Formats: sequence, C-alpha cells, structure tokens
Amino acid sequence: MSEIQNQSNQAVSSESGPLSAFDLFKRQDREVAKKAIAARLLRNGVKQEDPVDLSYVPKEGETLEPLTPESGNEALEVYRHSTAHLLAAAVLDLYPGTKLGIGPALLDDPKGGFYYDFQRPEGERFTPEDLPKIEKKMRDLIKRNLEYKRLEMPKAEAEKKFAELGEPLKCELIEEKAGATVSCYTIEGTPFVDFCLGPHIPSTSKIKAIKLLSIAGAHWKGDETRPQMQRIYGTSFFSQEELDDWIKQKEEAEKRDHRRIGPELDLFSFSDAIGPGLVLWHPNGALIRKVIEQFLNDELYRRGYSFVNTPHVTQSELFRISGHLENYQEGLYPPMTDKENEQIEYRMKPMNCPFHIQIYKSKQRSYRDLPQRYAEYGMVYRYERSGVTHGLMRARGFTQDDAHLFCTPEQLVGEVIACLDLVDFVMKAFGFEYKAELSVRHATDHSKYLGSDEVWTMAEAALTDGLNQYGLPYVRMEDEAAFYGPKIDFKVVDAIKRTWQLSTIQVDFNLPQRFGIEFISSDNKPHQPIMVHRAILGSFERFFGILIEHYAGAFPVWLAPVQAIVLPISDKYNEQAQKVEAELKAAGHRVASDQRSEKIGAKIRDAQLKKIPFMLIIGEREAEAGTVAVRDRVKGDQGAIPVAEFAARLSELNKTRALTT
Amino acid sequence: MSEIQNQSNQAVSSESGPLSAFDLFKRQDREVAKKAIAARLLRNGVKQEDPVDLSYVPKEGETLEPLTPESGNEALEVYRHSTAHLLAAAVLDLYPGTKLGIGPALLDDPKGGFYYDFQRPEGERFTPEDLPKIEKKMRDLIKRNLEYKRLEMPKAEAEKKFAELGEPLKCELIEEKAGATVSCYTIEGTPFVDFCLGPHIPSTSKIKAIKLLSIAGAHWKGDETRPQMQRIYGTSFFSQEELDDWIKQKEEAEKRDHRRIGPELDLFSFSDAIGPGLVLWHPNGALIRKVIEQFLNDELYRRGYSFVNTPHVTQSELFRISGHLENYQEGLYPPMTDKENEQIEYRMKPMNCPFHIQIYKSKQRSYRDLPQRYAEYGMVYRYERSGVTHGLMRARGFTQDDAHLFCTPEQLVGEVIACLDLVDFVMKAFGFEYKAELSVRHATDHSKYLGSDEVWTMAEAALTDGLNQYGLPYVRMEDEAAFYGPKIDFKVVDAIKRTWQLSTIQVDFNLPQRFGIEFISSDNKPHQPIMVHRAILGSFERFFGILIEHYAGAFPVWLAPVQAIVLPISDKYNEQAQKVEAELKAAGHRVASDQRSEKIGAKIRDAQLKKIPFMLIIGEREAEAGTVAVRDRVKGDQGAIPVAEFAARLSELNKTRALTT
Repeated sequence: MSEIQNQSNQAVSSESGPLSAFDLFKRQDREVAKKAIAARLLRNGVKQEDPVDLSYVPKEGETLEPLTPESGNEALEVYRHSTAHLLAAAVLDLYPGTKLGIGPALLDDPKGGFYYDFQRPEGERFTPEDLPKIEKKMRDLIKRNLEYKRLEMPKAEAEKKFAELGEPLKCELIEEKAGATVSCYTIEGTPFVDFCLGPHIPSTSKIKAIKLLSIAGAHWKGDETRPQMQRIYGTSFFSQEELDDWIKQKEEAEKRDHRRIGPELDLFSFSDAIGPGLVLWHPNGALIRKVIEQFLNDELYRRGYSFVNTPHVTQSELFRISGHLENYQEGLYPPMTDKENEQIEYRMKPMNCPFHIQIYKSKQRSYRDLPQRYAEYGMVYRYERSGVTHGLMRARGFTQDDAHLFCTPEQLVGEVIACLDLVDFVMKAFGFEYKAELSVRHATDHSKYLGSDEVWTMAEAALTDGLNQYGLPYVRMEDEAAFYGPKIDFKVVDAIKRTWQLSTIQVDFNLPQRFGIEFISSDNKPHQPIMVHRAILGSFERFFGILIEHYAGAFPVWLAPVQAIVLPISDKYNEQAQKVEAELKAAGHRVASDQRSEKIGAKIRDAQLKKIPFMLIIGEREAEAGTVAVRDRVKGDQGAIPVAEFAARLSELNKTRALTT
Repeated sequence: MSEIQNQSNQAVSSESGPLSAFDLFKRQDREVAKKAIAARLLRNGVKQEDPVDLSYVPKEGETLEPLTPESGNEALEVYRHSTAHLLAAAVLDLYPGTKLGIGPALLDDPKGGFYYDFQRPEGERFTPEDLPKIEKKMRDLIKRNLEYKRLEMPKAEAEKKFAELGEPLKCELIEEKAGATVSCYTIEGTPFVDFCLGPHIPSTSKIKAIKLLSIAGAHWKGDETRPQMQRIYGTSFFSQEELDDWIKQKEEAEKRDHRRIGPELDLFSFSDAIGPGLVLWHPNGALIRKVIEQFLNDELYRRGYSFVNTPHVTQSELFRISGHLENYQEGLYPPMTDKENEQIEYRMKPMNCPFHIQIYKSKQRSYRDLPQRYAEYGMVYRYERSGVTHGLMRARGFTQDDAHLFCTPEQLVGEVIACLDLVDFVMKAFGFEYKAELSVRHATDHSKYLGSDEVWTMAEAALTDGLNQYGLPYVRMEDEAAFYGPKIDFKVVDAIKRTWQLSTIQVDFNLPQRFGIEFISSDNKPHQPIMVHRAILGSFERFFGILIEHYAGAFPVWLAPVQAIVLPISDKYNEQAQKVEAELKAAGHRVASDQRSEKIGAKIRDAQLKKIPFMLIIGEREAEAGTVAVRDRVKGDQGAIPVAEFAARLSELNKTRALTT
C-alpha cells in the first residue's frame, strides 16, 4: 500500500494550496486514487482507529493510505455506512416528514450490511412493497453521481439546524455525544443531512451493488419506552457478483438454519417455562452429542488427558479470587443469597477454569507430576440479554469442551504441538478446513499486559515454535493477545463458506497468579506453572448448531442418529424387516424400520425428509434371498446386497468416520 | 404375634381390678410376657403410631400386642430411648448440678443408638475419660433392677416440679409441647425425672448390652444463639453379641470411610472457596465414573432408552407448574432475580422430571410413539443445611441417573419387568445383593392420594404382576406409597452388611396431570400417559461413595483407574518397563509404570497402598524373556507370564466385569 508522507504534502501545499488525501493519492498513482473511497490516517506512524474522507487535508505529522475495495472490512464499513446514508436520502425524498434515527454499517450480520431506523408520521408505515421503490430511488441517486459533503459547525448551530429540520432524535444525539464542533454529512441535491463523524465515500457513483432486504420493528436506542421506529435492512458490495454470492449464501443459510432443521429432525428445542437460551437436547440431538463425546473421550484419554467433573454453582468467593466477580459481572447469572448466612452468595459458573485450579491445588504438585491435563465437558451459564440469544449459536447455558493444561515452561512447546495435532485431528473428522491466527502483544506498548516480559517472550516463542514445528501456516495478529497471555485461535470454513471461530489455545499468566498455584521444581523450590486453556469444539451447543448447518441436517453415517431404516414394501415383509433390523442392531448399528401400512414411495419420502443415510427396501425378492435393496439418500438406488455385507459396509463407514458414502 | 381383645380384658378386670398390658400378656404366654419390653396399641383394629408401657391399661376398643426384642425397630427404639434415660440417671448421680436437654433414640446412625444432651455447671465439662465411669454407673443401675415409672400431672404442676429441679430447658419444652396433662418418667432410686411421652421398658434389668461412644458439642435446639451443651452418644442392643457385631462393623466402616479413602486414592475433594456439598471429581474418581457411565450408556441404548440433556437452571415457572416451588421450597437453592425483568426468577433444578416432560411435550405424541424412555445423568442441586452434608453420601449437588418412561397403561407391566431386569443386571455387575420393597396405598384410607382408584389399582397390579412375572421376592409395604403413586424400592447390602437404598421405580400420576401431557390413542382421542421415574444407582456421587466403602477402595479391574503398574526392579529395566506399558496401553488397558530409582519393595508397597490390582515386575529374567512377574494385590505373586498373555487376562477380566481376579 502506498504511503505518502505529510512532509511532502506540506512542501506541495506551499505551492498550490492545501492538498487533500485524494490529491495526494492521485499524484502517487492515478489508478489507486480512482479506486479509493476514503483514507486511512496515521499519526506519527501510528494507525488511527477512524479513517478519514478523501477530502481530508493532513496535518503536521500525519500520513495517509488509500482505502480501496481491496482494503477489506475497513473500507467496506465506510462503503456500507455511505449506502445507509443513501437509503436515508432516498427515503426522505420519497416520504417527506420521515424522521431519522441512526444508520450504521454491519459487517458480519446475516440480517444485512447496514440498516437505517426511521420514524414515519403518525399513521404511516413502510411495507415490504415499498422496498423496490426505495431501491429504485437509491439507484437514481447513484446514477446522478451526487457528492457526499462534510460540514463542520459549532454545537449550538448544529442543534438549531436539526431542530429546524424537525429531527428531534438527532438533536438528542448531538446533545449527548457532540463536542464543541459538530460534523454533519449531506448528499448533495437531496434533503438529507445527518449528524455523523464520517468518513464517507466521495460520491454516490462509488456505490456499485445494493439490495434492500427487510423491515423490522425497532425502538429508539433499543428502549421500549422510547418511540417505536421502523428499521430497514439492506446490504451493499463493491461488485454485483459479491452481492449475488452473498444473497445466494444467505438463501442457502436460511435453508440450513439450525433453528428450522432442529424441530424438523427432532434434535432440540427451547421451552417458554424454562426460559430463553436454555437448550433441551432431544433424543436424536443428544445421541449425536453422545457419539461426539465418545469420540473425544477416546481420543483425549489416548492423548494423556484426565477427565474431571466439577459443579455448576459455587460460593462467589471462587470468582472473587479469579477476578470474574469484578471483571465479568455483566456475564454472570444473578447471585443467590445463602439461606444460612447472608454474607455468603452463590453464583452459577460462567467458566470451568477456577474449578480445575481447585483440583490442581488439592495436593502438592512436583515437576514430575506435570503436565496435568484436565478435561471436562462442563456446562457453563452466562447471562446474555434475552434479545441476543440465538438458537444453539448463542445460548445462556452451553457445554464447553474445556481442558486446562498445567505444565512447566519447558513443556509448553510440546503441549502446543499436541494441541495443534488434536485440533487438526478433530476438525478433519468433521470435514472442516481451518485457519490459525496467532495473537501476540502490541509491538511496543506492553503496559496493559499481566506477567513479566520474560515469560511473555517465552510463551509467544513457544506458540510460534509450536506452529512452525507442526508446520501449520498462520496469521500473526499483533496487539490481539488477551491481557493475560498470547493465544492461537482457529477459524473453520463451513460448507457454504461461512467462517466460524471454534478452537482456541490460550496461555494464561493471570489465574495461576491469582490462585497462587505452584509446583516444586527439581531445584526443590516452588514455581508457578504455565496454564493453558484450550477448547476444540468451543461449546457442544454452538458446535452442534454449526454442524447442523454445515451438513444441512444430513449427518454423515458415523453421526447420524438413525444410520439406516428398513422399509418393507408391504405388511407381508414386516417380519423380515424386524429380523433385518435386529440383525443390524446386534452388530451395533443404529437402525429403525418403518412398518406402517404406507406405500413404499411414501416411506422413502419420509426417510429422505429425515435425512437417513440408507434406506433398506425389502420386497419379495429380497425377503427370499436374505438381501436388502440399498437406497442411498444422495446417490439413490444401489442394488440389493446381503444383509451381512451391508452391515460390514456400515461398520467401515462408521470406523473411518467417512463423510460421504 | 398373640393379640388380646379388650373385650376379654374388661371381663377379667371386673373380677380382680384393671389388668395392665403385662398382666394380659402373662395370661396369654408367660415366656412372651417375660421378653416383652412395651406394647403395641391397636384401636378398633388400627395400629397406633406410638407404643405404650407394659403398665398400660387398655380402654374400650383397644387391643395390645407385645413388643419383644424380635419386634425389630419398633422395640429397639423404646429400648434405646430407655437406655438414654439410664445414661441421664447415671450422669445426674455422678455429676450433680447437670441440667438436662433431650435424649432420643437413633436407629440408623453411625454415631450411635441414642444420645443425651447435657449442660454442666459453668467451668465443668465431660471428657472422654468420664465415659467409662458413667458406663460403670449405668451397669450398677442395671444390676439394681430399678423400675421406670410413669407419672401424670397437670401442666402447671409439671412446670413447678421442673423449676424446682432446676431444669429450665425442660420447663421450656413443657411450655411449648405439653397438653393439659403432662407425662413424666423417673427411674426409681435415682434423682432422674424427665418430661417424656414414653413408653419405656419396665425396669433397668431389661438392658443387656450398652456402650458409650463419644462426646460432641451441641446447642439447645440446634440453635447457635442458645446454650451450648455436650452430647454423649452411646448405643445399646438386646444382646452383647449384637453390640459386638455393631462395634466391629463400625470400626470396619471407619476404615472404609470414603471421606478417608477419597484423598488417599486422589478420587475427589471439596473446596472451601466453592462451598460445602459440592464435589470435585479428581482424575481417578472421574475415570471410574466415566467407566460406569459408559457401561450404563451401552446398556441403556441396548434396552431402548434415549438420552436427553437438559439445563441446570430454569425460570421458576417450571417449578411452579410442577408444584416444587410450593411443596419443596426448603430443598431449593435460593432464587436468582432476572436482570431484565424483576418478575422472573430463576432456580437451580432439584430434579430432572419437569425438564423431561418439556421434551415429551415439545410435539404431539401418538400411542405408536410410546413408550418414550428418556435417560439423563442430570446433575441436580438441593439446598441441604451445611451441617448435614456428608461427603459424597449427602451432597448439595449430585448427578441422578434418572430416567422417565412415558407409556400407555397396557405397557406398564412390560416396562416394570424391563426395569427390574435392568436393576438386577446393574446391581450384579457391582456385586450387590438386593431386596425389593413394594410400597402401596393405605389398605382402606385413600383420601390422601392423587389419581383415581381405578388408575391406582391398575398401577399397583402392574407393579405386583411385574415383580411376580420377573420372579423377584419382595416385601409389600402398606401405606408407604407416595401421594402421587405406588413404587418399588431396592435396598442393597454392602460388603460389611450395611443396607443402602439405591434403585427405585416410581409411578407418578401427579406430574402428567400438572403438565397436562397427552398421547393420542388408537381411539383418536387424547389420553394421559403413565409416567414412571426410575433411577438405578440413585446418584453417581452417593453410589460412588458406597462403592468406595463396599470395595474399601480396592476397585475390581473393570473399574480400577489404574489396572496394572509396571515395576522395573532397577533403572536398568526402565526402558523395558516403558515398552510393556506402551504395549498394554495400546491394547486398551489402563496401565502406569513406576520408574523412580526406588527399591522394588518400596514400589510394591506404594502400589499396594494405591490398591492397584496388578503389579508387573520386570527384572533381568523378565526383560530377557519378554515376560512380567505378576503380583496380584490380594493373592500376591503369581509367577512370570508373557506380556501378551497378561494383556489377554486383563481383557477377559474387563470384559466379564469380574469382581475378583
């Protein structure tokens, strides 16, 4: 990315007036300047959080970099924010008297890429039929290539201006948020003015692909006591192709939505009497979970882990020591006051770590006892606002596949490599590709971190060495470490190319210190062990939600709650169907039979709807020959084979955890 | 048991004054009368809860039966209560100025068979050295064959009497509990008088075997703000032999105490920061639990159960519907007030049933879908007073191996038989003998039960038929059913002949009605399904505690956390030890090795302390021959065998779940 020193700007500006970001970019590279939509601002070499308009004139010590469609989310956010303004301009043009709320960009929201909240005059409402009309108006404004203009004025003037415009909500925002000088943006040739920090694209013609999506109810500031508004969601991309891809993916995601497939396949539910975010796993869902648990149990025991079990509630003393009570109050369920002693309160646990530390602390540990690796499928409870819970993906109670490793500094690289191998093994079993990100400290400013420089350097080196020795490519993310230690995060890509953060390996210098845990080293002195948090699936609930959407409910044989269903073509063959079912069950397979007096076509349709991998059809020929006519849910009819042969095939698919048949 | 009609009493008394229970028994059978210690009272043929003294003169409509040492707990309670009085009499004799608290009998308490609470004058205290002296005084009083006398007087007179005796606590009790007439008991020739309902034995010589056990701190009425007292525990039996057996069993039980073996074998712990009754399962304990879980998983799936998973917290609405909020308030953890809505409160769950009902209710059920059998290892939380929690046996959080069956009335017998077979299978796997008790309604008074007569009759018949068809002997307990339905309870007898209630099969007419659950029957109409609660282990925590004590920590091979440990006789053979360990692990066994530079004798001692079933010793001969010298923790040296042969032996023991090697 080209970078232009302010030094040279000043030199130039002395000749021909002050030069804007755009002017500077153009001098550097006309093509890049043409593509630029805004500018990234560096002050004394340090990147500033907010980008600036192309019209921005840099000050002493400032440098600029162009933001183009290739700049990723930083550029997309500006672009979509500007599209939200365009939406508001179109709405004001079509529906005079509409009052404005707010209109931010969204980057990773299935609902859209931006929204704007509007308040129509009494008795008027947007309906879905209005969206094409508004979209058409937005396209007209794009074609007219109208300029986005930044205005700055004193606060009092701004308040007066918005009061005159009849925008009381904007006045309220200015009153609350503005400094002495207020920045506003207009789109030339439209009635639209907004109180906004910016930046924005230079003109409407920069917007290449838009789509309005839906209308939702909203309240001003999310407060039910404040005016009710209507929120229009839309999205925009730098190209029509990207937009088309996104719409296709959105449609595909809706088809795969686990909240829709869950009831269809009787996998899980929620109950009003129990409350939001608390999952009931039905037999089919719980069976899949048990298969996954068993798979992990075997693998973890083989890899030298121990399992532990800890309670879901504790005196809050434990979380006072851990710091959660102070720093994580928001996420905790409300307290329970002890019946015997009002001084004592109980809390449901939001994480398992402090409990595992208590087990570590229950006896003296020698360096010979390390590493200790404690795993638990520990259900934790975090108080999410009921409005943000989302099926299995964001629940209030979820089961982490948590493990905590306690090791010496020398053992850390080995533990990291073992974790990387475990992540690889598990992710491949489910057919997930994944990417690794290494989060380390800020390059220079180490003030916000806990733990000595020495131990940080050691830990970052151990994670890096681990990644290199294991041969895993990764992105190094500076300034992304937690205050308590560096980490490696893993992102998987699902069947429709969505990205999910799952596994994590985190070094923690904080909890060992807070709980004062030790091991006696070979020097006969106590030392603080390194503690590593690691999760592979993250949580069983969310992982299951992702799996449902990844497979669109068509689980591979090794996970399918029913692996095969026997379908007699008439009641005459029910007895043979029972025999075959029993034989396959005895061989350890999950098999059902459909002995209703229905046509075979109906039975097949039902089995397909249930996404059962194999249908085993039995008619006269099969009953006589002791075979089954195998129908694959994807490939269709496969011909008749002896029951034992099918059983062997199922065993093989199961054993190899085959993802396809 | 002989029974004497009041009718005849009256006839006799008209000749020679009113006859007492003892007189009546003597007329019937001199031997029985000699053995009698009190009498059971029947009024119009209905047994009354409290027995009466042998001096009792029956009234119109009353009949009497003798209570003898053969009458079980009913007699033992009177006998021990009288021994408690004897203790108090001895104490008052030896330590004048001592004030009396209360002194009840205990029937199934490891601490003893009775206690008496005393308050000594300021500055005086009982010490363990006093117990033999008191015991000797009790024996003296026994030898003197002193009479227990019942006195009745008006309340005011009784209060005056105890005030004069300087017994303020007794006055307090009389004030609170007495009716117009107060009964007191004395032991003739001692200063002892007690406010007491009785009954008591006729004289001290009836007491055959006594033992004082311990002194504990106590507060009047268990209230810390009330006077501090000293509690003397003792026990008594009808024969010295029974007492000796009990003491031996108590000593054996103390050796086996799971709270002692738990830390020794690193199985579990509690943490002050977490609080009482909340168990931390350490790696070794959690491993045994996982083995048991896996054993049950396989068995339950084979037997047509489904597993489900449900959260540990719910809006209290669920427990309002179930009735727990109203009827089980005491046992619930305190409420959590929702952060968003003060009207909503959350509760941790004390039982899983209502959650399973929500799953049942999540869709319409047809008779074709029944039975539904939902199993869960659901951790429940019950608020026990911190003082009554007792290791794993009585915890605040415990994991029920709960299942709920929903079936048609016609299916109930079959389900009962299947449950009986499951109980039998599981109990035998752990080496437990068991007894069954069938609890049914009161013979005549059905007013306290929920559900129609018809459905009760059907359910009791189904349980009875199930027991008979399965061929299981049982005791029929009238008037022992819950208000919501009849049940079968199972009691196991452990290695030292203690009895534990474990499994239960309970029919419930209450919850299906409260939640309004239904199935559509073949008549196309909705009907209420029969709901059965059943647990096999009861709770994993308590069952594990019982297992620890049953096996005295020496778990059979299939449960042992480490099944064999390889012991090289010197460092020279460490490499071979590693090889053998790896080979056995690869065969799926739980194996460790002790490669410390310790003498082989020390290594064997440590392995014995850890109760590891097999020690595999490797010296020069074994290393050369590829064998291991097998040492059995019980049988000692077994000679050298090839590693593969030992692996096969371990596999066999594991597969058959052998209880001994």
